[in-house]
Amino acid sequence: MAQLRAFESAARAGADIPDLVCFEKQADWGGQWNYTWRTGLDEFGEPVHSSMYRNLWSNGPKEALEFADYTFDEHFGRPISSYPPRPVLWDYIAGRLAKTRVRDLIRFQTAVRWVEFDEEREVFTLTSEHLPTGATTTEEFDRVVVASGHFSFPNVPHVDGIETFPGSISHAHDFRGAEALAGRDVLVIGSSYSAEDIGSQAFKMGARSVTASYRSAPMGYDWPEGFEERPVVQRFDGSVAHFADGTSTRVDAVILCTGYLHRYPFLPGDLALSSPNNVYPDGLYRGVLWQQNPRLAYLGAQDQWFTFNMFDAQAWFVRDVILGRIELPDEAERAASIAQWRERFDRIDSAATEIRFQADYIRDLLECTDYPAFDLDRVVEIFLAWKRDKKADIMGYRDRVYASVMTGTLAAVHHTPWLEELDDSLDRYLDVDPDARGAALLTGDAAADDDEREALLPA
Amino acid sequence: MAQLRAFESAARAGADIPDLVCFEKQADWGGQWNYTWRTGLDEFGEPVHSSMYRNLWSNGPKEALEFADYTFDEHFGRPISSYPPRPVLWDYIAGRLAKTRVRDLIRFQTAVRWVEFDEEREVFTLTSEHLPTGATTTEEFDRVVVASGHFSFPNVPHVDGIETFPGSISHAHDFRGAEALAGRDVLVIGSSYSAEDIGSQAFKMGARSVTASYRSAPMGYDWPEGFEERPVVQRFDGSVAHFADGTSTRVDAVILCTGYLHRYPFLPGDLALSSPNNVYPDGLYRGVLWQQNPRLAYLGAQDQWFTFNMFDAQAWFVRDVILGRIELPDEAERAASIAQWRERFDRIDSAATEIRFQADYIRDLLECTDYPAFDLDRVVEIFLAWKRDKKADIMGYRDRVYASVMTGTLAAVHHTPWLEELDDSLDRYLDVDPDARGAALLTGDAAADDDEREALLPA
Repeated sequence: MAQLRAFESAARAGADIPDLVCFEKQADWGGQWNYTWRTGLDEFGEPVHSSMYRNLWSNGPKEALEFADYTFDEHFGRPISSYPPRPVLWDYIAGRLAKTRVRDLIRFQTAVRWVEFDEEREVFTLTSEHLPTGATTTEEFDRVVVASGHFSFPNVPHVDGIETFPGSISHAHDFRGAEALAGRDVLVIGSSYSAEDIGSQAFKMGARSVTASYRSAPMGYDWPEGFEERPVVQRFDGSVAHFADGTSTRVDAVILCTGYLHRYPFLPGDLALSSPNNVYPDGLYRGVLWQQNPRLAYLGAQDQWFTFNMFDAQAWFVRDVILGRIELPDEAERAASIAQWRERFDRIDSAATEIRFQADYIRDLLECTDYPAFDLDRVVEIFLAWKRDKKADIMGYRDRVYASVMTGTLAAVHHTPWLEELDDSLDRYLDVDPDARGAALLTGDAAADDDEREALLPA
Repeated sequence: MAQLRAFESAARAGADIPDLVCFEKQADWGGQWNYTWRTGLDEFGEPVHSSMYRNLWSNGPKEALEFADYTFDEHFGRPISSYPPRPVLWDYIAGRLAKTRVRDLIRFQTAVRWVEFDEEREVFTLTSEHLPTGATTTEEFDRVVVASGHFSFPNVPHVDGIETFPGSISHAHDFRGAEALAGRDVLVIGSSYSAEDIGSQAFKMGARSVTASYRSAPMGYDWPEGFEERPVVQRFDGSVAHFADGTSTRVDAVILCTGYLHRYPFLPGDLALSSPNNVYPDGLYRGVLWQQNPRLAYLGAQDQWFTFNMFDAQAWFVRDVILGRIELPDEAERAASIAQWRERFDRIDSAATEIRFQADYIRDLLECTDYPAFDLDRVVEIFLAWKRDKKADIMGYRDRVYASVMTGTLAAVHHTPWLEELDDSLDRYLDVDPDARGAALLTGDAAADDDEREALLPA
């Protein structure tokens, strides 16, 4: 969506842009933010893309991800809270493109099967399948931008005894909601965002106990009663998990929060990025252009503090390389740039330096294009404040508010604290005073739907 | 495995056979019978192939699937029961090939990414990925045999309200065991083998209730108390399922037993079979050769009453076409053959006529090759007896025994009735008197492992 917006923005300003085709496996846009109840394989037997769950709220302040060319104020017309739930963020990213015609460029429900590069002719041959019909098509392209993300293919380690664990086993990728965990003893394996938030969801929805198992270090939050951290689980014996400290506990459900793989099954080995999840994967010039063949670009291949606005910075940069506005240095110069960033990357020793590293990376891209400049240092400050707020209150940090770097608008305090809100709908979120709605009906609102009114009145 | 065995058998008899490469996504052979605890995507992000669950026992008598060239007697050296659990069947099919060198022809953990056919040169170009390294390789082949089956890609229909059903939702493909369903209210959607057996597993493992929802007709077995059938579920309202007869029930878990799709994501549209699951898919000459391009073959693409020995009949036929022992008729003659079988297929009006149809189909193939002849009419009788036994006692039919068509051996009555057996291991199955083992330890067997002995002795 960022790449389409980047070209659309140039076209709006009068530029000639190349023919674009966007291949999208899902039936709608939004990527991770396009929720599906499906898990594993979809209705066409394709791996489900999104790892989204019903009750997900942003786990970082929206002020850190805001688009510089389309603010929350512009979309919602009024201040909203700093940690919106998923339908609100989907609405925001879809809203930026809804008034344009870029949707016509997208072939939905179309999976890319295989991409090859012809060295002599310098063209890509791309084969895709229209999933509802099974029709396969082969076409040629001068450039390919891979924007399929790297939070879709679960990393699922084996644990001794897991093959006979009698309870439910799933990966965070297939987690859709924690309601079924009420009254259950839950083990989340991992200590990053998935473990933190899925563990919190389980607690919120009434799990009897939540145990989080870490490999290197505990998350270390001030967890509520019933939520505890233990070192890595070494084996299962029936439904009993045994941890590295010699302790054990019986659990009903295991959720593997063990991260994701860089997987691009449609790319040959020499074009497919293979990297651990970090903020500067090797082999990408300016974090986007495939060093061995810069006609191929990757967006969002980094581990991410910054998200939407970083994707924009990358998409604008890639656009301008394709439009010839930015001259591509030769291979040696590109290699030197990668080496320089990788050297600084190796010196990262804390979350704060990593956040500043990513801010500087984005700044470097922004200087090359006409994407609206914004105060990256202030975004870094927001990230640091967010980390402090989480440390202070892991179950309450989403009730805090920050000011927009783009507009200065202070976010609104939401009508319901995160821990008490069970309805993740857009309507509920945008309702200024949801409790007043029932009251209005009780006093006899003539316009109220009769069925709904009856449901709200005592029998 | 059938195709490799067919060629190996010809080579053993002195024939010159072509170079063979078998691409296998999994780390071991056995296909569906190669159990994995994984669901959805595997450790390399590939769709998990097998739909096998821990406690699966054959749901048809082994006497109906026995290889004519490798009997159960030859493998196990003594009579075993008629409905063995999965590790026993895996051991049997692996045993047939274990003493040969065909394993060397298999590239394990290698996924086929894309296949193309060059009309002029009449060769296939096949691109594969070695999953542990990500290395992709493109090679040419004169023939391709698709033996990936069609019980790997779940058919997952949408049901109104399922996107907010708060309990667990899975497809039979991802079912691994029913222990976690103990004390729960379970809804299985479907009325074929998956619904029948997964519903029965849930009952066996102590589900509070099992409801099976059928679209066209109920399974109609004499289900035990706590197991009932209802018409199709039309919608979910929270955790309440509403059925077509106006009734409703609250459920904790939904298992979609809604069948599988023919999916061959590595094949272009003009080579990929697209068919409902039936005993004579259109477009396959003799049920195996792709009519539009008979250099491509499919094994086991039919719906299956017969299994292992039907795959053999097909593999021997395909082998002999490739070896030139069987002359391929021209396109018109092949079309006439397909039309003839399809006409008879259209007249199938009962399970019994369908079973006889498939027996005749196999007989037709067997007449063309040197695969050992066997009495197909007796196998039909076994199928019909099996259906009667199921009708008489759906929870007890697996305790019945039949005589081998190949050897005449009467199966042994198993030491433990299916409904009481919770251990599906090969050791437990082959133990002639499993209750005697503990007794030997209690009387002080000097060779017994001390730890094990302590565990079995009262404290």
